[in-house]
Amino acid sequence: MPLDPLPESLLPFLSPYLPSDHPDRPFVTLTYAQSLDARIAAEPGVQTKLSHSETKTMTHYLRSKHDAILVGVGTALADDPKLNCRFPGSTTTTARIRPVIVDPRRRWKYAGSTLRKLVESGDALAPIVVVDASTSVGTHGGDEDVRLIREGGGELLAARILDDHGSRRDNSWEVILALLHAYGIKSVMVEGGAMVINELLCSSSAIVDSLIVTVAPVFLGQRGVLVSPREQVELRNVDWWKGIVDSVMCARIK
Amino acid sequence: MPLDPLPESLLPFLSPYLPSDHPDRPFVTLTYAQSLDARIAAEPGVQTKLSHSETKTMTHYLRSKHDAILVGVGTALADDPKLNCRFPGSTTTTARIRPVIVDPRRRWKYAGSTLRKLVESGDALAPIVVVDASTSVGTHGGDEDVRLIREGGGELLAARILDDHGSRRDNSWEVILALLHAYGIKSVMVEGGAMVINELLCSSSAIVDSLIVTVAPVFLGQRGVLVSPREQVELRNVDWWKGIVDSVMCARIK
Repeated sequence: MPLDPLPESLLPFLSPYLPSDHPDRPFVTLTYAQSLDARIAAEPGVQTKLSHSETKTMTHYLRSKHDAILVGVGTALADDPKLNCRFPGSTTTTARIRPVIVDPRRRWKYAGSTLRKLVESGDALAPIVVVDASTSVGTHGGDEDVRLIREGGGELLAARILDDHGSRRDNSWEVILALLHAYGIKSVMVEGGAMVINELLCSSSAIVDSLIVTVAPVFLGQRGVLVSPREQVELRNVDWWKGIVDSVMCARIK
Repeated sequence: MPLDPLPESLLPFLSPYLPSDHPDRPFVTLTYAQSLDARIAAEPGVQTKLSHSETKTMTHYLRSKHDAILVGVGTALADDPKLNCRFPGSTTTTARIRPVIVDPRRRWKYAGSTLRKLVESGDALAPIVVVDASTSVGTHGGDEDVRLIREGGGELLAARILDDHGSRRDNSWEVILALLHAYGIKSVMVEGGAMVINELLCSSSAIVDSLIVTVAPVFLGQRGVLVSPREQVELRNVDWWKGIVDSVMCARIK
């Protein structure tokens, strides 16, 4: 199904928040759609349509401005996402966004995924899967799934994400982003899920360059998946855009 | 401190959501300011400035259009709120809004409150305190606090709010609103706190006529007081207004 046209007023609104070059790390845009009560899904593991079709077009427009789209393994498993770019008119960039799945314990499989089908039909790039350095499986190309990823042009990258107790290291996001930068990725659009968003908002070093949140006028209720960082987070350079039913906020983190 | 002027564009924006007459119950407007992560306070019991001064003016403008302003006992205890109307230019209606405090177990005291000082200086009306019918204290005018409330022109009303186990009855809000209607109150602006908001959003009978939510661009974090109803709640007739830093959503509940 083709995307709706992009509302013209979104272009000047989004423009100040689009990626610019950093010398030493990727530009990071954090973007998601939430309900009024800050839920990104009605229940854990349940993909929930929240935003209007015009903000879906906005998401694909934003993807067309980034080198990579990153999600956590929870989102990859729950949503079986497409992770491609379908922004109309940008035929040269169609599918030119690199999916990145952060999957420390290697729970996601490429073989049966929708993404693989899209890669095979030329409608998406093969993913980079970032695993923890302790996850031996596949790091030597010994398993079928890794072979498929590499055949498609993707890669499996190992990073020191977990500590000896299996918990996230404090600097795991810096490490992951440095690895992607070394791989040639200059801008990353992070789309979820809740754990990834909450971690990035609260990261001790300022990782997020632009924050773009769509607020949908609905309450998903107490069983929903909540986005709320551990600590208070202040924003600056705030602007709002009013859509047909949603409101979109752009900001930088203080 | 005088209020900022009301932004002119708020008048046509708010107009469709202002009170109209119901024959048998008060018109109910539910309004509050929240962070992006749906928190109305940084911690339980801590009053938190969230919205810009222009949306504070909006609150007083809305109060000038209602007969009563209602808060739960938690908010009354935590905030020691003024509960008056200071909308400039409406001198005839200044202070002409009736504070209603829903306090089933009668924990709030009028005697030492800021509200009492305002009543004595003519800057607020004395409150209606709604207690559970089982709360014998004061219902016969035997205590000092009730005497003070009545002297100021307020009232203590008893309603069947709690069941035999001390839990809220399912129809407690219908009962409270019917009582207020019988008292001559045709429109009620409900401002909090979280428990009251969550109950009203999920009430089985449609109690809320207009919902007006200010979204402030900040995350208050996981220690904050969350507004999120028990169940999913859909909205209709949604409109957004963009302020200097905040966004305001008006809607009706489906």
